[in-house]
Amino acid sequence: MALVLHGYFRSGTSYRVRLALNWKGVDYQVRPVNLVSGAQREASYLEKNPQGLVPALEIDGQVLTQSPAILEWIEETWPERPLLPADPVLRARVRAFAAAIGCDIHPIQNLRVMKKVRADFDQDQDGAQAWARHWIETGFGALERLAANAAGQGGFLFADGPSLAEIYLLPQMYNARRFGVDVSAYPRLVAADAAARALSEFEKAAPENQPDAPTD
Amino acid sequence: MALVLHGYFRSGTSYRVRLALNWKGVDYQVRPVNLVSGAQREASYLEKNPQGLVPALEIDGQVLTQSPAILEWIEETWPERPLLPADPVLRARVRAFAAAIGCDIHPIQNLRVMKKVRADFDQDQDGAQAWARHWIETGFGALERLAANAAGQGGFLFADGPSLAEIYLLPQMYNARRFGVDVSAYPRLVAADAAARALSEFEKAAPENQPDAPTD
Repeated sequence: MALVLHGYFRSGTSYRVRLALNWKGVDYQVRPVNLVSGAQREASYLEKNPQGLVPALEIDGQVLTQSPAILEWIEETWPERPLLPADPVLRARVRAFAAAIGCDIHPIQNLRVMKKVRADFDQDQDGAQAWARHWIETGFGALERLAANAAGQGGFLFADGPSLAEIYLLPQMYNARRFGVDVSAYPRLVAADAAARALSEFEKAAPENQPDAPTD
Repeated sequence: MALVLHGYFRSGTSYRVRLALNWKGVDYQVRPVNLVSGAQREASYLEKNPQGLVPALEIDGQVLTQSPAILEWIEETWPERPLLPADPVLRARVRAFAAAIGCDIHPIQNLRVMKKVRADFDQDQDGAQAWARHWIETGFGALERLAANAAGQGGFLFADGPSLAEIYLLPQMYNARRFGVDVSAYPRLVAADAAARALSEFEKAAPENQPDAPTD
């Protein structure tokens, strides 16, 4: 199967998909879509993804969109090195942790929403970042409490290695630092982030290691 | 298994879970959480769900949170009357449709975000609803194009009956109408909404048919 991942180095949702593919050891080609210059709104890209968002994953000519759907497809297609536990209730807890980031933090502080906050409500970059920090801090506070009850090992949240929880956590932690959140308030999340980032498969997926990342 | 659903009649995420449980024919008790009076921030509720959001589903003393996780758990626990197709790519398409609502529309226009828009940016109810309409209309435009390529029958989006796509669509369509979106611009979505709402299992899940809905 030939995989082409259309994404952007700093997009959290693209980062999630890179993490999962790298963890599973799946080969893929990266095709950068520059969100800042508006490449996601060009006709050639909208043909692939009418939503005009990244990522999009081409698989032998078919296009999959939406990182939550792509991640479940990856897990179903390559069940080795599972990102979800076998126990039904534990699966639901890992997915709930992921959704608390994927639904209740990330979409409210992504680029298009911050742009709209600036444009509609006359905010400068500081105002938009304060908005982003509010949603990250609210969400991280709850996640830290959820993580306190999770029985992971070696720093990881739910298992003795990474799960979908870390796949969602790393990109959100990256954004948190970028927007000036004091992440030391969330020691359990910081530990899981560090444990997962130390994996060579995950390091290769980091924004700064992508072909479209600035080199200076 | 004894199920207790903590939710709010007008919460879209609670509505999703009611739709799925009703479709599978699973019995559950409803325990209303009044989001307007702030019951979701009371200590007794935060003990169940540290995020302070609805829904929460109690199953024999354990608590599941986050509707995307609860819905996958329901599908895994009661595979009859499937809400996801068997084909892997089609599963990904249904989940992408669901996520386009669950991540990119609903969370940006829910009660807590609209409250924050009003408080931080000095907006009245009209201003907050204009914000909500923007995200619904942007999202529905893309979903209408996605739906145009879907091969459902009898009005349904991806199959000859409801899928996870309709489970997400109905509550979002309900909000769209409430916030004054002209939904006639999205005929494919309107048709799927009508086909699904005509099902008796789905009608019983509607906000106006819940015990905590106002009776006047």
